[in-house]
Amino acid sequence: MTAREIVGELPVGGTEPLISSAVRWGDLLFLSGRAPIDTTTMKVVSTDFTEQGRNVLDQIMASLAEAGSGPEHVLRVQCYLLNADDFGAWNELWAEYFAAPRPVRTTIVTGFTIPGMLIEVEATAGIPG
Amino acid sequence: MTAREIVGELPVGGTEPLISSAVRWGDLLFLSGRAPIDTTTMKVVSTDFTEQGRNVLDQIMASLAEAGSGPEHVLRVQCYLLNADDFGAWNELWAEYFAAPRPVRTTIVTGFTIPGMLIEVEATAGIPG
Amino acid sequence: MTAREIVGELPVGGTEPLISSAVRWGDLLFLSGRAPIDTTTMKVVSTDFTEQGRNVLDQIMASLAEAGSGPEHVLRVQCYLLNADDFGAWNELWAEYFAAPRPVRTTIVTGFTIPGMLIEVEATAGIPG
Repeated sequence: MTAREIVGELPVGGTEPLISSAVRWGDLLFLSGRAPIDTTTMKVVSTDFTEQGRNVLDQIMASLAEAGSGPEHVLRVQCYLLNADDFGAWNELWAEYFAAPRPVRTTIVTGFTIPGMLIEVEATAGIPG
Repeated sequence: MTAREIVGELPVGGTEPLISSAVRWGDLLFLSGRAPIDTTTMKVVSTDFTEQGRNVLDQIMASLAEAGSGPEHVLRVQCYLLNADDFGAWNELWAEYFAAPRPVRTTIVTGFTIPGMLIEVEATAGIPG
Repeated sequence: MTAREIVGELPVGGTEPLISSAVRWGDLLFLSGRAPIDTTTMKVVSTDFTEQGRNVLDQIMASLAEAGSGPEHVLRVQCYLLNADDFGAWNELWAEYFAAPRPVRTTIVTGFTIPGMLIEVEATAGIPG
């Protein structure tokens, strides 16, 4: 029987963990959207897009490793950008963090809940048996 | 052999059901994005964010129960807000409807297709065997 | 043991395939968000919403067929529109491409990374055994 398994939790605002960082269901792994914020101060880690992107992708890589997955098992990535002008820089980071053949991806332009955020990224992965 | 199973359908605009409210695939349950609208009139149920949020979360809880799932089996929630200022109120509702440990979550700021909508929420859940 | 299987790749900008068009994990199929663009020139295929929508849905139908799936096995569709005014036209295309009972769906209003894009659509499907 499959049961939900919490892989890690994210303190948001420094209080109780409001969300999980990752949840496992069978051989599927669902990650929370990762934001380039310091979860204690709720401020962005940098005003630079590439630094924000690296922070987010590093968080995702750490969560994948914690769950026994990894970038080569990522199935889908959803990326939210504040500015369409950052699409080129996002593609460069993407190609660096994920080797070919790469996951499926959707990138759209949206707003965010925390001032200064330029990117948020959500991943879905498989966990090899 | 796994087959797609429709759990419920949503009448939109009072005509034929344009979308399913929930679809089951094996032990996974996919819910439609739920909007705080009266599906007959296609008007929002309230101008108040918290009332809209409760409407949406109540719809989700009903769909989960109908499919033999429940909030403790929800894996991922994607939340779309019209105004970043509603993030605090959304976190309060979230903590009320989902007990710790909570699902993974992504919250972004977007527009909507129906005037007056302040929130839309989409859930993915497991169905315990 | 389940392993990630790339179903197809998308050349973006005419260079190496930056993303996969579809990825299979067990009996689940994840498609990239499909945009109404010519991947060689990175320009939109039309300025007309319905033509853009048909382009995107045709791409999705082709990917589903390539993977041994089809519209009747689609579980979830996420649709991103630039203009809320296109919601009616989107519903007409939706009803044409997907027969009842239909998948679950979420439609929100966002921006895009490529000028002129009016729609992007992402699908998740089952692959019948």
